[in-house]
Amino acid sequence: MNSLLKEIRHNPLLWLLVFVPVVFAAEKIKPEAYTLLFVLSVLAIVPLASLLSHATESVASKTGDSVGGLLNATLGNLTELVIAVTALRAGQYMLVKASVAGAIVTNTLFMLGASFFLGGLKYHIQEYNRVSARFQAGLLFLSTVALLIPSAVSLSDSPAATAFTRELSMWLAVLLIVAYGLGMVFSLKTHRELFASAESEEAGEAPWPIGLALGTLACVTVLVALVSEIFVESVQEAAVAFGMTPAFVGFIVVALVGGAAEMASAFSGARKDRLDLSVGIALGSASQIALFVAPVLVLLSYVLGPVPMDLQFWPGAVVMMLLATMATSFVTNSGRSTWFVGLLLLMVYLIFAMTLFLLPPRST
Amino acid sequence: MNSLLKEIRHNPLLWLLVFVPVVFAAEKIKPEAYTLLFVLSVLAIVPLASLLSHATESVASKTGDSVGGLLNATLGNLTELVIAVTALRAGQYMLVKASVAGAIVTNTLFMLGASFFLGGLKYHIQEYNRVSARFQAGLLFLSTVALLIPSAVSLSDSPAATAFTRELSMWLAVLLIVAYGLGMVFSLKTHRELFASAESEEAGEAPWPIGLALGTLACVTVLVALVSEIFVESVQEAAVAFGMTPAFVGFIVVALVGGAAEMASAFSGARKDRLDLSVGIALGSASQIALFVAPVLVLLSYVLGPVPMDLQFWPGAVVMMLLATMATSFVTNSGRSTWFVGLLLLMVYLIFAMTLFLLPPRST
Amino acid sequence: MNSLLKEIRHNPLLWLLVFVPVVFAAEKIKPEAYTLLFVLSVLAIVPLASLLSHATESVASKTGDSVGGLLNATLGNLTELVIAVTALRAGQYMLVKASVAGAIVTNTLFMLGASFFLGGLKYHIQEYNRVSARFQAGLLFLSTVALLIPSAVSLSDSPAATAFTRELSMWLAVLLIVAYGLGMVFSLKTHRELFASAESEEAGEAPWPIGLALGTLACVTVLVALVSEIFVESVQEAAVAFGMTPAFVGFIVVALVGGAAEMASAFSGARKDRLDLSVGIALGSASQIALFVAPVLVLLSYVLGPVPMDLQFWPGAVVMMLLATMATSFVTNSGRSTWFVGLLLLMVYLIFAMTLFLLPPRST
Repeated sequence: MNSLLKEIRHNPLLWLLVFVPVVFAAEKIKPEAYTLLFVLSVLAIVPLASLLSHATESVASKTGDSVGGLLNATLGNLTELVIAVTALRAGQYMLVKASVAGAIVTNTLFMLGASFFLGGLKYHIQEYNRVSARFQAGLLFLSTVALLIPSAVSLSDSPAATAFTRELSMWLAVLLIVAYGLGMVFSLKTHRELFASAESEEAGEAPWPIGLALGTLACVTVLVALVSEIFVESVQEAAVAFGMTPAFVGFIVVALVGGAAEMASAFSGARKDRLDLSVGIALGSASQIALFVAPVLVLLSYVLGPVPMDLQFWPGAVVMMLLATMATSFVTNSGRSTWFVGLLLLMVYLIFAMTLFLLPPRST
Repeated sequence: MNSLLKEIRHNPLLWLLVFVPVVFAAEKIKPEAYTLLFVLSVLAIVPLASLLSHATESVASKTGDSVGGLLNATLGNLTELVIAVTALRAGQYMLVKASVAGAIVTNTLFMLGASFFLGGLKYHIQEYNRVSARFQAGLLFLSTVALLIPSAVSLSDSPAATAFTRELSMWLAVLLIVAYGLGMVFSLKTHRELFASAESEEAGEAPWPIGLALGTLACVTVLVALVSEIFVESVQEAAVAFGMTPAFVGFIVVALVGGAAEMASAFSGARKDRLDLSVGIALGSASQIALFVAPVLVLLSYVLGPVPMDLQFWPGAVVMMLLATMATSFVTNSGRSTWFVGLLLLMVYLIFAMTLFLLPPRST
Repeated sequence: MNSLLKEIRHNPLLWLLVFVPVVFAAEKIKPEAYTLLFVLSVLAIVPLASLLSHATESVASKTGDSVGGLLNATLGNLTELVIAVTALRAGQYMLVKASVAGAIVTNTLFMLGASFFLGGLKYHIQEYNRVSARFQAGLLFLSTVALLIPSAVSLSDSPAATAFTRELSMWLAVLLIVAYGLGMVFSLKTHRELFASAESEEAGEAPWPIGLALGTLACVTVLVALVSEIFVESVQEAAVAFGMTPAFVGFIVVALVGGAAEMASAFSGARKDRLDLSVGIALGSASQIALFVAPVLVLLSYVLGPVPMDLQFWPGAVVMMLLATMATSFVTNSGRSTWFVGLLLLMVYLIFAMTLFLLPPRST
């Protein structure tokens, strides 16, 4: 418990934890103040996500390399998963899909780009482990193919087409999870020496004792789930109040909120010239969402959702995911980075964000 | 004749030759048993294709390097060409196009992927001649552009549009054949030293005497043509009986049947750590189909077909060819391979096969 | 003045200057002879463009590296800009867009491809500075994303959609200019050592005195503007007379005319084994048009045009720009070149030109 308090005292981000009780109180008192609830829930999710990721890392570091890698790989995007499951249960499939596509695009373009940019402002040229980056880029390419195919062969809106898309999506989900699992066998077992540099760097902070870590993991997951419910309920109404399109909210706002904790680590890694850490977090997180979170959501929709969810995305989102993957494989080709490489990625992200912000509602 | 018998005795694949007379007999006795005829014709084509490719190599090895390279390059996919010409004469243009697109995708994703995977299970990391792989990837990119453009600028179904697409396709066919020819000048004449490693490895088996080779070439081509006729007649009916869509049959089944012999060589090369051989067969075969077989079929359609055939493909097939080319140029960038690289390619192939298998009929 | 005359005597291209007065005379005498005026204006623009580019380089070389680089970067495509502004003022937005897309495609595929091809015919293998090529390819990728997005998310033809596309295009234009400016900071200031080889080579010819250079710059710009007016007025009518589609004229003819002077330099560089110069001119010119000329035209359309111009291109043009960028980043990956690499690029260009030539009118 002491380590938890010490952590909170030293990490200003965690002071935002005060908003967790505030958001619950506000929801009781003013359940229709959507804009306020939206802002409060965002402020509450950010520190919870940070705690969650620290707890996961602590459990991982205690359980040995393979199990730890597995844990990190499955729970690393727990926040995104919990938010998406909440939206799934509410039947808001458009929000679920937008947040999945948005998380992939945000992690590859914004998180990676800002890491390159911030690191490049301090260091003239930075180098990183190209093998690891290309492995993640390969996984991302595979998932982009899987997410693109249902749209590419999509048919007219007949019942046969809906049934086809659903069945295809279910099998694609199974295949992506299998590919993700085999990717872990490759990177944690058979060829782990290729990923050496990225690995050794990750032991950054002192881990918590296992009991505290497990307890935090359980409690905070419940808290994230409760706050997510308020977030999902208020997000669409708040978007209208702020003049944001639903596409912008799902794609940009949810992705930035869900990934805030990882971004803090990735950026701080880049500023310390530990770019392997940043690239690992950004691309690892993107491929985890594409190959693990997205398919798990499809499979969960059979249990939790009103109808099964498919993997057919809005064509604009497919184009954005494809371009993000192409940009990633283009820039990670060299294993070197300067501020301008980061800027290019950020510019592509800005183009996407701008497009979604200006998009008239009801067109996605 | 002795060498032929010896070959047959040592190669279990050739024992399937017994199905050649069986399929002709069955066609006489039960011409309406489509499912049976389909299975028998597949079993008969596989060993014939293997004989054909051995005969071509033997003639090539006797005629000196340049002529031999030319022969190998023109007759290397004779089986696919004969099957496609048979379908062309029957006016089954959809089957012709599906088998061309399918052969390109199958050779780049399945043949190359399985070679990397099988080789990678035995060897930790395998290396191959990157120059040769990138040369083939460049040719494939060019042909993908050529096959993509008629669909990209396709117009409404007016008579003017049909005439435009046909004229464009004819000129594209001429251009691809010219590019293919100049590619041979490059790889066999002006810059042959860059392709050294791939070349020297190919002299695997003892060649036949020239008389036997030429005789086999002639006889077996006729046999393949005759069996292909039964295959093309029965394939659509059999597909329905097996619950397979026509798209799946053209794309996957025909491509696997036509390429069985080459796959056997490519996989055995990978297991012997001679990956240059595997990459050369897989990508060489894909670019040969794209830049030689496909355009020859377009030009032949003016003579043999009921109407000229164009190069406008089903949009889903264009997307698959484009993604296969992107995947190829992505993985061949490094000149190194592990089992996971092969798995990634196989997964992309599996996604395509699954999509085509589930696709409701009448939608391509 | 002497240096100007000496230049004219030694450069056969400049003898075409005689067509400048001829075209003005012809326009006075026979204003309806569109085919003649078109041919004469083409013949007059080519030497003017050559003078303009020499004058710009002379001013640049006198003003120190940074200002000079800036000048070269802004005025390097002055001919294209003046022609496009003339078309803009005439409200011919389709011609403006086709010439922008065409200039990008022509510079990346034809100018780069012919440089590789011509150089490769003389030298077995040529090498060039890969960093510089990849920097330009990165800029081109960014601009392709910006030019692709309005089409990718394009909506039905409602008034809301038009307003959205216009507003998005304006912001994209601003963003591209900012990216272009920051790219200059990167290549001329913070990381100029990476571009060393390309830089030092550019001081090819003896510069003119500053007074002559500035005077030439001013006078020739006015002349180009006047000739462009005749060119823009006559081009569509002449196209019909020559049996060329409007798409072909805008995409191919205008781009070749506007870039003739740069092509002469790029090809001569390649023949002297100074491939860095050729790659720098070809890709630098392409990214300048994409990131500077195109956005400036969008912003100018608010002042000069009847209505604001957007960045929504004909889908076929978007596909061609995307494929050209992919081809560029594919071939510049290695930093080495042979004649066949150039041929591949030229073949892709030929496919595009052929398609546009055959395209029935009224379909773009």
